[in-house]
This record gives sequence, C-alpha cells and structure tokens, in this order.
Amino acid sequence: MTPELIARFTALLGERYAITNTADKVAYETEWRKLWPGKTPLVLLPGTTEEVSQILKLAHKTKTAIVPQSGNTGLVGGGAPSPAGDQVVLSLKRLNRIRRVDAEDSAMVVEAGVTLAETQNAAQAVDRLFPLSLASEGTCCIGGNLASNAGGLNVLAYGNARDLCLGLEVVMADGQVWNGLNTLRKNNSGYDFKNIFVGSEGTLGVITAAALKLYPRPRAYQTAFLAVSSPADAVQMLNALRDASGNRVIAFELMPQMGLAFTAKHYGTVLPLAAASPWYVLTELADGDANAFEHILHLATDGVVAQSEQQRLDFWRLRETMSEAQGFEGGSIKHDISVPVSKIATFIDEASQAVLRSMPDARIVCFGHLGDGNLHFNITQAASADKAKFLSQWHEMNEVVFEVVLRFGGSISAEHGIGQLKRQWMPRIKTDVELQMMRQMKHMFDPLGILNPGKMLP
Amino acid sequence: MTPELIARFTALLGERYAITNTADKVAYETEWRKLWPGKTPLVLLPGTTEEVSQILKLAHKTKTAIVPQSGNTGLVGGGAPSPAGDQVVLSLKRLNRIRRVDAEDSAMVVEAGVTLAETQNAAQAVDRLFPLSLASEGTCCIGGNLASNAGGLNVLAYGNARDLCLGLEVVMADGQVWNGLNTLRKNNSGYDFKNIFVGSEGTLGVITAAALKLYPRPRAYQTAFLAVSSPADAVQMLNALRDASGNRVIAFELMPQMGLAFTAKHYGTVLPLAAASPWYVLTELADGDANAFEHILHLATDGVVAQSEQQRLDFWRLRETMSEAQGFEGGSIKHDISVPVSKIATFIDEASQAVLRSMPDARIVCFGHLGDGNLHFNITQAASADKAKFLSQWHEMNEVVFEVVLRFGGSISAEHGIGQLKRQWMPRIKTDVELQMMRQMKHMFDPLGILNPGKMLP
Repeated sequence: MTPELIARFTALLGERYAITNTADKVAYETEWRKLWPGKTPLVLLPGTTEEVSQILKLAHKTKTAIVPQSGNTGLVGGGAPSPAGDQVVLSLKRLNRIRRVDAEDSAMVVEAGVTLAETQNAAQAVDRLFPLSLASEGTCCIGGNLASNAGGLNVLAYGNARDLCLGLEVVMADGQVWNGLNTLRKNNSGYDFKNIFVGSEGTLGVITAAALKLYPRPRAYQTAFLAVSSPADAVQMLNALRDASGNRVIAFELMPQMGLAFTAKHYGTVLPLAAASPWYVLTELADGDANAFEHILHLATDGVVAQSEQQRLDFWRLRETMSEAQGFEGGSIKHDISVPVSKIATFIDEASQAVLRSMPDARIVCFGHLGDGNLHFNITQAASADKAKFLSQWHEMNEVVFEVVLRFGGSISAEHGIGQLKRQWMPRIKTDVELQMMRQMKHMFDPLGILNPGKMLP
Repeated sequence: MTPELIARFTALLGERYAITNTADKVAYETEWRKLWPGKTPLVLLPGTTEEVSQILKLAHKTKTAIVPQSGNTGLVGGGAPSPAGDQVVLSLKRLNRIRRVDAEDSAMVVEAGVTLAETQNAAQAVDRLFPLSLASEGTCCIGGNLASNAGGLNVLAYGNARDLCLGLEVVMADGQVWNGLNTLRKNNSGYDFKNIFVGSEGTLGVITAAALKLYPRPRAYQTAFLAVSSPADAVQMLNALRDASGNRVIAFELMPQMGLAFTAKHYGTVLPLAAASPWYVLTELADGDANAFEHILHLATDGVVAQSEQQRLDFWRLRETMSEAQGFEGGSIKHDISVPVSKIATFIDEASQAVLRSMPDARIVCFGHLGDGNLHFNITQAASADKAKFLSQWHEMNEVVFEVVLRFGGSISAEHGIGQLKRQWMPRIKTDVELQMMRQMKHMFDPLGILNPGKMLP
C-alpha cells in the first residue's frame, strides 16, 4: 500500500481516525488469543455509515482489501488482517449509537459497534429482553455477532443472531448503501437479502446497523443443576423437560466431570451436589414452574433447584468458567461442532474413542449447548505432556473429530464460523453445487474480491 | 411450444404424468378465485426430485418457461401460468412423501407436495407441533408455503414459514440439485442459501423438499374473546398480555364489529358477548395460565374465556369465517398489509378516512394478525353498489391504502407475497440498490429467465 493511498483513505476521516502508528494498530491486528497474528498498514475508524460508504468507494476504485472488524472477539480468525500487511482494517467500533428502542414494537435499531451487553441493557431499560447471550458479551459487538451468526446460551428458545435480526443496513463492496432496516414481523415483498449478509463473515458487505427483535422480559427463572449418568439420559431429559415445562426451557447445558474438576481447581467453584457424577446438566426455564423438574428427576441421579438468584448465578458460574479453566491445564485443541440431538450420545462415545486411540492420555472436556446439538468437544493435553508438541497435533485431531462429526450428519462449525481456521475444510463439507453457488454469490456482491479476502471461501 | 418439444418433456415422465388434455389442465391453469386465468400447453407431474431435475435440464436446454406449483392456493397469482400459453406448469403434487419425522430431534423432512395439514398431522403423531397454521391448510402444500413464506395465525409465537424451515432441497434452473436438507439447529459454515429460496416465489429454484422445525406440542390452550373500544387499546392489551402470560401468547387477532356481523348473518355464528363493541380481540395462550387474562381485563369492555374445547373452537370459527363471509356481501377489495404494531391504531384511522373520502359508502372490514402488525384491510362494497363497477376501482383503492401503509413504514404485502398482483408496485416499494440486487440475484440463479417469468420481479 503506497503512502499516497494511505493518505487518500486518511483524508476521508481525518488523522485521528486513521491509525498508522505501530503501537496503536496492534489491538486491531491480533485478537486476545493471539492465534491469528496479522499486519495492517492502516486501521480506519469511521463514525457514520456515510463514512463507511466513502471508504468502500475508494477501496473499490483502488482495489484495496478491507477487513471489517467490530469487537474483535471472534474465534476463527475472521476479523484479523492477513500477515502480509496488505489489508486495511475497517473497525466499526465508532458506529456505536443505539438509534431507536421501540418497546411497543418489541424492536430496536443499533449500529454495528454497539456491544452485545449495551444492546441487552438498552432492551432491559424498556422492560424488554434481547436474548442473545454469550461469554464475550461485554466486548463483542452486534456487527460481529451478525456477521458470524453468533449462538450462545439461549438459542434453544430464542434462536441465534440470525433469528433475532429483523433487518440490516449494509454498505456494499462498491460503497452503495442498502437500507434494509425493516422492523416489521411480516414483509413478503422480494428476496431475503438480510440472511445472506448474516453469517457471511464480512465477505459480502459491511453491516453498519441492524434492526433487532425484542421479547417480553421474563419475570422469573427456574434453574436446576442435575447429575446424569450419561449424555443419552441428558438427551431424554431435554425432551421430557421441554414437554413437561410447556416449552419453557431456555438453556440446557451439558458438562462433564472433568470440566467441573478444572473449574473447582482453578476458580474455587463448589459443586452443589455431594456425590460425583460423570455428567451434569445445567438447565433453565423462563417464567416456568419449577415443578416441571419433578417430571425429569427419574432421569437424574441427583439434582438441586436454585433457591435464590445468588444460587442461580453460582450454578451459571460453573458453566461460564469452564472454557477458561481449561487454559490452566495446558494446551487445548478445540472443536465447535453440532450433530442432531438424537446422535449426541453416540457421537460423544465414538469421537472420544477415536481421539483416545491417537492420544491415549488426552483429557476430553466435552461440554456445551446440548439443547441445540452443539458441543464444544475440547481435548486437553495430559498434565505431563509438552504443550507445544501437543498443540502441533491440532489439525490431526481436527481430522479425527470432524470425520466422526461428518459421519453423523453434523457441522464442523456450529456457532463460531469458518474464518481462517476452517476455510480449508470447505471443499470437504460442501457439495460442488454449493461451492459454486458460494463463489457466484461472492462474485455478485464483491466482484473485485476486496471484502475480507482469505476468509470463509476456499 | 412445438409438439416435438412437448413430446420430449412427456418422454421424461410418461404420458400419464404429462397432461395436455384441455379438461385436465384447467385445475392447474386457474386457482379457486379465478383471478389469474392462465393457459398452459403442458402440465408436468414428476414423482421424484430426479425427475424434476430432468425436466429443468431440458427446460434449460430449450429455454422453456417453467411455472412451479403445489397446492395452487396462492392469493397473488404466483402459481398461475401466463395467459399467453407459453409456460409449462410443473406441479409438485406427486412429491408427497414424508421422508422422515424425528421426534427426538424435533425435526422432519417432507417433500414439496405434502399438504400443510398432513405435515401438522405427522408431527402430532409423534407428539410434536408443526406450528404453521392458515386457512387453506387442508390444500396448500409445504412447497408453496415456503416459496411464499406463508404466515398465518401463530407467527407471533413461532415465526413464519421461513423461521420454521431448517433446510431445503432445491432443483436449480439448470437442473442441478442443491441438497441443503440440514436439520441442525446450529451450522455456521457458509452462506445461507435456504433463506434466498424461501419467499422467492419459484423465481430462483424449485423447492422439492424441506427440513422443518418441530416444537413441543402444547398440552392446553387458554383462549379469550374480548371486546375492546379501539385498536389502540388492543395494542396495549397485546403487550400487557405478552408480559403477564410470560410470553405465552400464540395468537392475537383483531376483528371489527362489521366483520362479525357478516359472519353472524351468513354463517349463523353467535357472539359470545352480550353487548356490541366496535372491535374484538381473539387471543390464545399455549400452556399458559388463564389468570393472565385478569391482568388485561381493564383494557377490555367485556370478555370471556373459553370454558371448553368446543367453546374455543366456536371462538375460532368467528375468526375463520370472516374472510369468506365478505364474499356474500358483494365485491371486496383486499389489502394484506403490515405496519409496526405501535402504528396500527393510527394506520387504521388514516387508511379508513382515506378510503371513505373516495368511497363514502364503502364498508371497511379490517381484521387480522394484530400481534404481527399484519392486517387484512378489506373494503366491502355498499349493499346497493354495482359489484363490477366497485371492483373496477381495485387498483385505485390500492393506491389510496398503500400510500398510507408506506407512510407508516409498512409493507404492502405482509404474508401473501408479490406474484402478479403487486409486481408493478416493486419499483415504488424498493430502492434502486435493492432492485439491482434482486435483478443480479435472479440472473445468478436463473440466467435464462425460465423460472416463473412474470412473477415478483418488476
């Protein structure tokens, strides 16, 4: 990128919002896990949709690659620039206005750089619920949530980011603005472009604002922590509880004994049940009746219902610390996969056996959103193993696990996306017809290939 | 179409399933309202996806226009061939297999020609709910439901056809088959093609099968019939009831006194309330608590909760007969519109005034899915008026009503689609950017323009 071109982009925003300084660029070049070290000559921080449009117009004219980024919390390298240093980072963080909250319409319009937590809070301020909820909600932003179709804890009841989005404002590759900020619940007039941009990881257009769906705010939660003998019993329990509660289940999380041992060791969390169990379930109803839990107790070996908000939060802390606790135990090879719910038990069994055949002393920590068929099938190194050597087997272990996932009709990326991490898998998981459709779609929206090159598409 | 070309298509299926006989073609050329009289040289009735693929391959090679059709119950002429007699009707009615019902996964896979009622019943047989529900459910088919993104009575709680679809099998314009029959709840791996085909009215591909989302089957319904003074009170009631019931409202229908008078007159229905009221609400909870109705009674002038399943069905009959009852009163000019819920009261007021300025003696029958902001704003002729003369003002009245709809940020087609009926409105309701995107999308999927020509796209 020539100094002259950098100067032209800088002129669009002023020097304050066009970062070229090495120290200041770092935060946009790498994410917190430092897995995707990138380099960029320039970070642009536009403050309005119009400025995003100006940037894209210039990028289009000059064939400059643009990497859209918001909270930079993604887990697949989707928001990181290439290490070659030839891609401009377009940060949406200054598009951080909540444009509208309409309680009566159960809708709000927020810009891409508003954090998920701010969005939740703005909904709550008018006694409504924005139900998307995930670990990074204090930092991640709506733009990235939609670009990656984020999932999280309550998809079972409310759907993923896609389902919670009513409309979008998108700046196209050539700088044109598509205003699709519809808040209507029913509008059957033309092709659905919203869903093409949601989940496209910034490769088809830059999401600058979104109309979101709000729900009545639950008045009370009923939360149970249960010990189960097996994932098969947990699946039976899920369906029985959905029926017994009148479809009030909003979360149904599976956790293994090993994972809870890690959180106890590193965070001092205390199990609410006396006896140990190979598996546990944390489940929650919204505005339900705790008596519904009685209908599933025969499927549990033990269980306790939260008697206070504090106890409920304690239960959730067991689940929330599970990801990070693994970090203290050495290297962890991660898989964000999904299979049909009915296949979960057999999948865990076969995938675990396959991993242990290659790595007999590995420690499998398989947990996650059982209600959605979505598991985080993680492999922690043996305590005695060498971390670097263990992690060097990442792709090999992916092969082992994904082979089982695909055999069960599952997805190798349930909620994190493709990004850089799984891009090379696309030819294996997609048919030729679909790959061809993807290339055509990319060409239609971004004929010059300037939007987030090197991501998602093989 | 040459006899030779007809013979080539006929050879793909055999004569039994390639109809050229005038008498037998009629049922496929016109729908039940006879509003879109079409002509076709040939009706094809393939029995498998492979046969659909063969037909499309030949159509592509010979540039033959294809009109996909399933239940033929659409309301905008989307499934009718052109009167010019140059388009082949491709009926999906023989693709009528339920391929799979997975209770444990809350999913099923059905072919395009399965009726909505058969789909509901198959779900019920395994104690699950397929929640799409609309007047023509005994005849309409899943293929058409998805091609038009059907709405209906329970969108408020379960979403429209799009939201209930997990995946699709589609035969593309060139005969290639896209197998996207995903039943996973989370699968973030690539662009979302499913939603591009849903609601595209057969102009981008032919849906041959769909994976559908099932829900726990409600154990009990709580149904109330309420008198309200105004639509504004009804909107307040909607939001209060959603809160008070813990988000258990699955239907919230508005009806005017005039509409109920028509059903009483022509169907002998009996109002469950003694005193007359300008407006009524029919609302239903699933697995809720009828005590929730107490929290909204101050917004009603009168009300009654169904005390038996029979009484519940009687309440619903008042709503279900409302559309057809208007037919006995002469001509009816119909509008399927939506506005933000918060704007409903002002919209009804302004649209009614605008209509009455042009037609002082018209009778406005505005009813529908208030919970979705979706109203059927119908205008019935004066008893004394001439029907033909009245109906000749259809487009003029559309102009009057749609002007108000658009001023309120609404949609001129909430749930019925565009088809032939509203095609000429597209340049007025879409921006240039969106129209250009639509044309590009059409060109990408159907470069020869053989799929349902003359529908949706301006």
